This record gives sequence, C-alpha cells and structure tokens, in this order.
Amino acid sequence: MKEANYKLILVYDGTNYHGFQRQKDKITIQGVLENALKTLYDEEIKVTAAGRTDARVHARGQVTNFRVQDDRIPSDRLPLALNSILPGDISVKEAEKKHLDFDARRDAKMKRYRYFCYKSTHRDPFLRNYAYFLKRERVLDYENMKYACQKLVGVHDFTAFSASGRPVKNKIREIYSFDIIDSETMLVFEIKGSGFLYKMVRLIVGTIMQVGEGKLTPAGVERILENKDKHLAGPTISPQGLFLEDVYY
Amino acid sequence: MKEANYKLILVYDGTNYHGFQRQKDKITIQGVLENALKTLYDEEIKVTAAGRTDARVHARGQVTNFRVQDDRIPSDRLPLALNSILPGDISVKEAEKKHLDFDARRDAKMKRYRYFCYKSTHRDPFLRNYAYFLKRERVLDYENMKYACQKLVGVHDFTAFSASGRPVKNKIREIYSFDIIDSETMLVFEIKGSGFLYKMVRLIVGTIMQVGEGKLTPAGVERILENKDKHLAGPTISPQGLFLEDVYY
Repeated sequence: MKEANYKLILVYDGTNYHGFQRQKDKITIQGVLENALKTLYDEEIKVTAAGRTDARVHARGQVTNFRVQDDRIPSDRLPLALNSILPGDISVKEAEKKHLDFDARRDAKMKRYRYFCYKSTHRDPFLRNYAYFLKRERVLDYENMKYACQKLVGVHDFTAFSASGRPVKNKIREIYSFDIIDSETMLVFEIKGSGFLYKMVRLIVGTIMQVGEGKLTPAGVERILENKDKHLAGPTISPQGLFLEDVYY
Repeated sequence: MKEANYKLILVYDGTNYHGFQRQKDKITIQGVLENALKTLYDEEIKVTAAGRTDARVHARGQVTNFRVQDDRIPSDRLPLALNSILPGDISVKEAEKKHLDFDARRDAKMKRYRYFCYKSTHRDPFLRNYAYFLKRERVLDYENMKYACQKLVGVHDFTAFSASGRPVKNKIREIYSFDIIDSETMLVFEIKGSGFLYKMVRLIVGTIMQVGEGKLTPAGVERILENKDKHLAGPTISPQGLFLEDVYY
C-alpha cells in the first residue's frame, strides 16, 4: 500500500449541479465525487479537474485526478467501484494510474467544448437541458458567423470575453479552432483551445449569435477583442447547451 | 363564442411525473395540462388521452382532446399559448379543431410505442432517464428474440401480459407489428397495435429480454400467451426506456 495518483475521465449531466467546484451547502460535481472517493477509500481526498464547468454545464470527457495513500484498487476496477457509489448523473468512464506529479488542470494541453442549439418550431422537452432553443423562423447569417469565429482563432488577450468572479492575471489564451456545424435540426459550435477564462465559451457563443442576428459585424468582434471591451461582448448564452467534450494532454 | 373540441399532440419527458392520469396529491401530465387549460380559459377543463402512460414513461406523440365553451383561440395559436404556461418538460406540438364528438381515446385506431436500450460499457448519465442500460458484455440471442416477437403479432387475448390495477373486461388486442432494430449502440423495440393493456408493452419487452438471455424460448412465449399464464411472463421492464411515439386515427 503506497501513494498513488489516478486520472479519471468523467461524464456528467450538469443539470442538477451548481457546477464542478465544491461550494459550501451546494451540490457540486466535485463535492459528490470527493464524497464517493471518501466512501471508497475511507480517506479525505481532493479532486482536481481540467476545467471547472459552471452550473448546468455538462461533460462527456472531463478529466480529473486525485492522490490517495492506497494503491490497492487496480485502475481498471475503479470505474465500476465508483459508479456503484455515484448517482446516475455522474459516471466514471475510464481510470488510469499516473505518475505522482500528474495534474489534470496544469498539464492539460487542449480542451474541446461544443455548444448545441436545436432548431424547432416548438420547445423540445427532451432537449431542454441539453441545447439552446433556436426558433426555426429565426434567420441567422451563418456566413458572417463563421467569418467572425475566425477572428477569434489564435493567441489573444481575451479580457473582453471573460466574466468577473475569478481573478486571473494572465488573460492570454490560444484558440486553435472555432467552427460552426449547421444542419437542418442543429447548430453546433465547436471550439478548441489551450484554456478558457471564466464563462469565456458562453460569452463568445453569445457574441457570435449577435453577429448571426446582424447586431454585430465580424469586424466589430475583432474590435471588441482588441479593445478588451467587455460591455460590447456577449450576452453570456445560457449554460445548458455547453459540453466539455475532451481534454488533451 | 361557442363550444369547441380541440385535439392536441403532446411531447413530454415523463421523468418527473407520476404518469399521465390525474391523481390526488401527485404531479401528473393530465393534472399539469388541465391546470394550464384552466389558466388559459378560466374554465374547468377535462382532458382525454389516447394512452395513459405510466410514471417515467415519455411521449413524442401523445394525443389528447378537450372540450371548452370558448372557441376564440384559433387552433394554430393554441400551442404557443399553452407552451407559455406549461413547464419545459411538456410541450404542445400541434393543435387542431375537431368535430364535437371526437374522442382521443375511443377513436384511436393504432398506437406506436418504442422501447430503447443503450449498449455501453458504463452507465451513461445522458441516457439514464431515456433508455434501459444494457451492458455491452451482455450477450442476447437476437434471432430468437425476433422470432418470439412474431408469436405475439396478431389478434390475441393478452391476459398473460397485463398487470392488475386497472379492471378491463376485454383483454383481446391486436398487435400489427413488433420489430427489433439492433445497432452497435442501441437496441430498439417497436410495437404497433390497436391498443395496449396496463403495462402490456413493458411486460412484453421484459419477456422478450428473457428470450434473449435464453431463459425462455419463442415457443415458451407462445404458451404463456395461450395459457394466459401471468406468472411466467415478464418481468415488467423499467419505464424510462418507453416512448409513446404516435397515435393514428
């Protein structure tokens, strides 16, 4: 029995959680996961996540790690052992033993998020918690939206697209790609980057929607970015359409 | 202003409801819909449904009708008017004005139900309320299952596949078709029939799963049906995988 460090890949439906990060008197993913680990190991365990998702945001590939003074559970047994304790809306997909200094947050090289909008004439009860409702008659300028997305790709200071609430000094991030996939029933935003500031993805998607509605031009988006002008960015689109898809190391 | 009879097509996520039928002190689809109609018309209104779905069962095409002493709201405005009152997990997809004696239950000619099972190595938080979890390593004999399904097609006395709880004299129903669609990630049962007894679809699917596991043969299913032997049928599979897809008139 010696110290070990495990990487866990988590899938969760964030609908009933106040986000990832542990908060006093609120149900969070971290809180529930740490309680499950305590039940399993009979030891206080702290979990670190690659991305601290907000309330009602989902994950299909959140990555976390935790250190424990007990390496007796083989990593291929960990998912089943934890899933038998965790509630149905959180599931451990994979576990892997890593070297002791692996850190899910610090070592992440790239994250991929997707934001889903569904197009329909009426509200869809099955998508209400998993996608943004885009009324079918709402006409968006997809060409301009796609063009505006490209203005955000690259290394930039994303101060304009960050919400207050978490003090971070360095607001420079790199967006590797930002694409829009448009079909008859769905509009999907896919964004890959080195990291994202607090509410950055939702602020960016909300801003691109403004471009789609003709309230903002691609050049306007570029100006907001350059001038770090928070007042012209956004609004922050609602959380339920956002999925943390994967984290790359 | 005169009496009118409206047909409504409903979509609902049954997860948080104690089924369709109004019950004292319990949240039901009928209760919530009748309250919304009362808000809209300022009149006590009774709703009739084609199929009274159980707790946690869903609908993508439930059909209901209601009579009201006020025909001032045009049927094309009804969905929006009701959806602005109804909670997000119930949605009116279509409304149509019908002759005064139309009855969603009595006039239904055929109903189509589907039962969804998802195949995965781990529990899927996003499907937990919408499909039955079939562990990927569980091997089912699909050929025998399909063969057993055909034994139930036709006009039969379905006493063996009915649960107590709702006294019905005539237990003869006709199943028009009963198919299994098998893919890498999903197993879907699709059943069309003139009507279904209380818990009949879930009892039938539970019985066919027993065939898949080799606990029962297709000939055994035929015997259960002929002998009206309730004790050998089932078990009743869990409700969350069941969807009332459409009702035909």
